[in-house]
Amino acid sequence: MEYIYFQGKLVKKDSKDISFLDRGILYGEGLFETLRVYNGEAFLLDKHIARLKKGCSVLGINCDTDDLSTGGIRSVIDANNIVEGSLRITVTGGGKKGLLPAPDSKCTYFITGKPGSPYSPEHYSKGYKGLISSIKRNPYSPLTYLKSLNFLENILAKKEAYDAGYDEAIFLNVKNFLTEGSITNLFIIKDGEVLTPDEKCGLLPGITREVVIDICNKNKIPVKEKSNLSLSDLISADEAFLTNSLIEIMPLVKINKHLINNDRPGSLTKRLSILYKDYIKICSSP
Amino acid sequence: MEYIYFQGKLVKKDSKDISFLDRGILYGEGLFETLRVYNGEAFLLDKHIARLKKGCSVLGINCDTDDLSTGGIRSVIDANNIVEGSLRITVTGGGKKGLLPAPDSKCTYFITGKPGSPYSPEHYSKGYKGLISSIKRNPYSPLTYLKSLNFLENILAKKEAYDAGYDEAIFLNVKNFLTEGSITNLFIIKDGEVLTPDEKCGLLPGITREVVIDICNKNKIPVKEKSNLSLSDLISADEAFLTNSLIEIMPLVKINKHLINNDRPGSLTKRLSILYKDYIKICSSP
Repeated sequence: MEYIYFQGKLVKKDSKDISFLDRGILYGEGLFETLRVYNGEAFLLDKHIARLKKGCSVLGINCDTDDLSTGGIRSVIDANNIVEGSLRITVTGGGKKGLLPAPDSKCTYFITGKPGSPYSPEHYSKGYKGLISSIKRNPYSPLTYLKSLNFLENILAKKEAYDAGYDEAIFLNVKNFLTEGSITNLFIIKDGEVLTPDEKCGLLPGITREVVIDICNKNKIPVKEKSNLSLSDLISADEAFLTNSLIEIMPLVKINKHLINNDRPGSLTKRLSILYKDYIKICSSP
Repeated sequence: MEYIYFQGKLVKKDSKDISFLDRGILYGEGLFETLRVYNGEAFLLDKHIARLKKGCSVLGINCDTDDLSTGGIRSVIDANNIVEGSLRITVTGGGKKGLLPAPDSKCTYFITGKPGSPYSPEHYSKGYKGLISSIKRNPYSPLTYLKSLNFLENILAKKEAYDAGYDEAIFLNVKNFLTEGSITNLFIIKDGEVLTPDEKCGLLPGITREVVIDICNKNKIPVKEKSNLSLSDLISADEAFLTNSLIEIMPLVKINKHLINNDRPGSLTKRLSILYKDYIKICSSP
């Protein structure tokens, strides 16, 4: 039996406790975070909670995240026997009537979790194929910068890529510069330099993205955030990779019909993957 | 007691029957329609159901809308004693696991409804004040053209306007052309001609918008859909108004700091409001 943590208590996974009038289901008003569990601990929980709080402030959701980050996370990990696995925290604007949010309304929140590695070793050894999405990211919307429950654009892009035989969709912005993947951030390696689209291009500033930039800096690997990376930069890259909390570092070996590094994960990508694994060990050792 | 129609049965308004794993609450994957009830009948139901079906096809939601449009609508109107009032139909992608939708998964659907006129006579006699939103509409996203549960951009824009003392937010697109309001379509009147942004600017093609264009054509009032209307066109307009199914035709008498028609509803706007009321009478008389 799987369990979900719902506002202070554990409930069964197939419970139905969400109101028809919840602003999450009516408008997608809310936020989520996906986290990895290593050694029975939620990885970089503080950073995820900080991003969630920031998002709540933008959306005007009144959420005290203390119960989530203390009791909730622990309860879900323990109840579902997660040593290695993944978690999702969902927060909505709650059940207030009318279109406008109210700062005094109570949020709805729940945490789901499951054991197991979300991706297999084959995924990493083969690498991902990326397709440029027909949807373009909008830098002029606050939603572009939030992990909100308005996630349909990402789903439609991912489906478009998947239906065409690709693993991930990559968004250009409305000015045709590279931004991010449907559930990942994008990195390019060119002449030994690690490049990633700047946040202002219109992307969710990922926590793994931030860690990878830190790892580069600490290991004296040149790294830059750039606001004008184009598709041709990606096509002509020496290597490329994608990041998110669940996927960690995934080599990107193809974009549209163009192979990157001859369809194989590159050497600096591999080095960064090892450095990221080391970072996990340091952060999650007891 | 208010009742909601939920998948073939009436339930109490404060019921909680939505699963934690519903794609509506997890991703905002779904669509909605808001309708007016006149004389105990859902107005232009066929058009709303047709738009809903089109949206389901774009999102890959497998929804047989027969039960909604026959039993569901009637049940909600009767159970809540609605002679004049409003309805909302909500459809989500249901409970399928994983990010990608599946065409064989069953949708979730429900209908809420309440009696009463949503807007008062004072609203119409005073008219609405509009504020240009800091958020810009993205013509390069399929979501812009759907009434989806990804409604947060609209809410944030409406809140921005409301907090600044305005009634409605008006979106420019990423090229700075006029598109629509947060919950309305926009019309301008200039030299006796009725102008409205073309769908391709990036807007939801409203059902009331379509009816207003038809009414203009039938009454030989010149009307055009235009792809390059700018804020200065709105500022210099002789009259302006907003439409949606619940609001019908609402005069727009101010945009940012600029008064339109001296802060008063214009004469052609008033004439169109009367023609729209006539149209309602014709369509909803027994």
